[in-house]
Amino acid sequence: MKEIERIKNDLVIANRILAREDVADAYGHVSARNPDDPRTFFISRSLAPELVTAVDIVELDLDGNPVGSESRPLYLERFIHGGIYEARPDVMAVVHAHAEDVLPFGIANGTRLRPVIHSGSFIGAHIPVWDIADRFGDTNLLVSSVEQGRDLARALADHNVALMRGHGFAAASRSLIEVVRMSVYLPRNARALRGARLLGGDIRSLSPGEIEARDREAYGPYSTATWRAWEYWANKCGCGDLLSRPQGKG
Amino acid sequence: MKEIERIKNDLVIANRILAREDVADAYGHVSARNPDDPRTFFISRSLAPELVTAVDIVELDLDGNPVGSESRPLYLERFIHGGIYEARPDVMAVVHAHAEDVLPFGIANGTRLRPVIHSGSFIGAHIPVWDIADRFGDTNLLVSSVEQGRDLARALADHNVALMRGHGFAAASRSLIEVVRMSVYLPRNARALRGARLLGGDIRSLSPGEIEARDREAYGPYSTATWRAWEYWANKCGCGDLLSRPQGKG
Amino acid sequence: MKEIERIKNDLVIANRILAREDVADAYGHVSARNPDDPRTFFISRSLAPELVTAVDIVELDLDGNPVGSESRPLYLERFIHGGIYEARPDVMAVVHAHAEDVLPFGIANGTRLRPVIHSGSFIGAHIPVWDIADRFGDTNLLVSSVEQGRDLARALADHNVALMRGHGFAAASRSLIEVVRMSVYLPRNARALRGARLLGGDIRSLSPGEIEARDREAYGPYSTATWRAWEYWANKCGCGDLLSRPQGKG
Amino acid sequence: MKEIERIKNDLVIANRILAREDVADAYGHVSARNPDDPRTFFISRSLAPELVTAVDIVELDLDGNPVGSESRPLYLERFIHGGIYEARPDVMAVVHAHAEDVLPFGIANGTRLRPVIHSGSFIGAHIPVWDIADRFGDTNLLVSSVEQGRDLARALADHNVALMRGHGFAAASRSLIEVVRMSVYLPRNARALRGARLLGGDIRSLSPGEIEARDREAYGPYSTATWRAWEYWANKCGCGDLLSRPQGKG
Repeated sequence: MKEIERIKNDLVIANRILAREDVADAYGHVSARNPDDPRTFFISRSLAPELVTAVDIVELDLDGNPVGSESRPLYLERFIHGGIYEARPDVMAVVHAHAEDVLPFGIANGTRLRPVIHSGSFIGAHIPVWDIADRFGDTNLLVSSVEQGRDLARALADHNVALMRGHGFAAASRSLIEVVRMSVYLPRNARALRGARLLGGDIRSLSPGEIEARDREAYGPYSTATWRAWEYWANKCGCGDLLSRPQGKG
Repeated sequence: MKEIERIKNDLVIANRILAREDVADAYGHVSARNPDDPRTFFISRSLAPELVTAVDIVELDLDGNPVGSESRPLYLERFIHGGIYEARPDVMAVVHAHAEDVLPFGIANGTRLRPVIHSGSFIGAHIPVWDIADRFGDTNLLVSSVEQGRDLARALADHNVALMRGHGFAAASRSLIEVVRMSVYLPRNARALRGARLLGGDIRSLSPGEIEARDREAYGPYSTATWRAWEYWANKCGCGDLLSRPQGKG
Repeated sequence: MKEIERIKNDLVIANRILAREDVADAYGHVSARNPDDPRTFFISRSLAPELVTAVDIVELDLDGNPVGSESRPLYLERFIHGGIYEARPDVMAVVHAHAEDVLPFGIANGTRLRPVIHSGSFIGAHIPVWDIADRFGDTNLLVSSVEQGRDLARALADHNVALMRGHGFAAASRSLIEVVRMSVYLPRNARALRGARLLGGDIRSLSPGEIEARDREAYGPYSTATWRAWEYWANKCGCGDLLSRPQGKG
Repeated sequence: MKEIERIKNDLVIANRILAREDVADAYGHVSARNPDDPRTFFISRSLAPELVTAVDIVELDLDGNPVGSESRPLYLERFIHGGIYEARPDVMAVVHAHAEDVLPFGIANGTRLRPVIHSGSFIGAHIPVWDIADRFGDTNLLVSSVEQGRDLARALADHNVALMRGHGFAAASRSLIEVVRMSVYLPRNARALRGARLLGGDIRSLSPGEIEARDREAYGPYSTATWRAWEYWANKCGCGDLLSRPQGKG
């Protein structure tokens, strides 16, 4: 399989995993930067992630315009992806979704979201909360322009995840498999932290050194540990037969 | 397909979505006003929403009487629908259900239900709580007369949702697809608010301007964003093959 | 179908519903008194409710001994059923289970379980908590003798449900369909009450008059409203084809 | 079936049960000591428990080295198993997993995990919390050396379960079926305790005498009560046809 075809194929798996793992519902989207042209990225046309197949993947430039001719409706919030790719050359994949258990951390200011379980380490020590109202006032809360996408990207800065007040989150990573893993463990870490609050007492978060130690490990997309999760989730959502690896990563 | 047939067909989808998304269980019902005669509406005969098919749809007048000859048992609480259609000419579809995570907000007075996530904006800034005991004293809590239906409709007034103390909620909208969307996001918004309370601190609700901004947008039933959810939910509940659009809304 | 066969058949449906609705797991059991002989009752042999079929139903006397020859292992806690049938001539069906969301109310003394939603009214205004340790000291917590079964029945007295500390609950009713309905709505009512506590403020329970008003209504097993739930749950757990009604209840 | 083959077969069932009951996800593992050679144990190669079949079972020594030639990747944390088998000759089976509702008890110090429901008694009266940082400082939190496995085993001491701070738990038992049962009821007991805290007031735990009384009972793997659960869970996860008993345990 050619690398571009393989990435589109992996985007289908990613969409289906996010739906199956309750990260996305009718809404939410995942994209991957074009490895051959950093100024474009691949993402589904406007469609619920559960229903995405390879023919639904379109190529957009960083302003959210289709690269080829494309008459099908696009995601309104494609500017989230363009804004982050523009600001962060290191980022190769982006997820935006509304995973339910993450939402309270963008609404209440009593508990800061941070990693408390090892699988949550990848969300990073600091998770900014972006409020669209700070700069744009009363809106429909959707990131519907290049300007708003850039503002969100500024709030994300060099972090891995930004919460979006009253709306959801944006996650960015150096690979598609890693951004999916981060998006699945983000709500799980949120539930563990909420549970810890319910039990009362002091809460022990991961230390900065622990977060760094995990980042230093080889948890790349084709490491034994990461592939185990990708393979599991792909099978769970009915995409086991779509699994593939790039040449030399077998 | 004739428009009336299309509406009955959409009612089947709506019933199945409400069951699949845990808004309804054995109980709960959804109706659509007859576009050709504002004094009647379509609703299933007495049957769990999960089991409703086109042959189960009956036509009732606003007092809850069948328009044609109908010997099958009807929903006892059909007066909820009649009462709201009578009071609200703008309303074309109504849902009544007992979605579990909404119930606490009709029982405890410590936290007022209101929109805290963008997808919850459609429930509106103010959600009245109707207590059947206020006017009718000790009852079985069911809306079982024209008079009780009218009393509920008075409490709903020009809002989109009314909670019913110790019982459930009634939601009203200008279209069937929108009232289903509102009913699915109502418990999700309730969970986000409950979660925010658990985290402590101040809770940031949607501002009146944000709620209005979302109302102003074209989130009508056949807009790209709304159809995406309807299509997704219909597929999830096994009704993907029943999807249709009115002429000119392709 | 003969009435005894019909009751065994309904017991199969009841077992499967309790499993499907998360009232029972590997453990928990449901029984029906023999309408032809009030001194015996029908119940499955020792088997997870999910797996029960008609051949697994055995007939026991009120001391828990098989009426016919029976070499298969029996439920250890069959004395719960015998004890209640002995003390309560009005009771025709019993459920014992460990539905998860009911358990906390038998462990913590800060919030008394009581009906807060209309579908929970059938659990009754007062729900005693029985602690096996009060009379039997340190045990394995299981009701494993006639004496213990009688003690539990004394605590249940003329109520519909008794909680068993650190263990589960016992529910009793005049019909099998009603005791299943009560057992499904018991944890739902528990969740609504727990949710209300989380929201803070005062909690409005059903009034004694409301509970009575619902008891006065004809919510018998073959009423339109009750059958709707039984039919729905039976279909959900794959037993739709087993549904039947006694003669004259069509 | 030869006993070794039967144990490998049971390990497949155990893996699938842990996945189906949400004890494990992509991660988590279960092992059984070799009954013919206490210095080795059986465990899957690195694979999500949901996907494990008999050909994936490998034999490792207590230092985590494969007994035969084995080129497939192994679980990084196999040292958990080796460390416990080395320290505890009585232990014949070990589970390590990250069941979500157990995690908060390893993070917050306000509520000590202990048995509050009868099915939770097997986790034992005291559940130590092991923090890898106490001896190893900032790590990736994974038990990735013989030394770390031994340290965890020291914390477990003669208890049945140890929580691992910010990570998960390790459970040990005299049989595979029992360690699976304990691992399924551990999160259930955790949820019951969390729920009790939400309700407020005093919380009644199982007494030491009750825990002992349950240990004294014959809840061995082939007792009626325990087999009922194993049979149920095996059927639920699609492994009903794999069920077998050792000779003389029919």
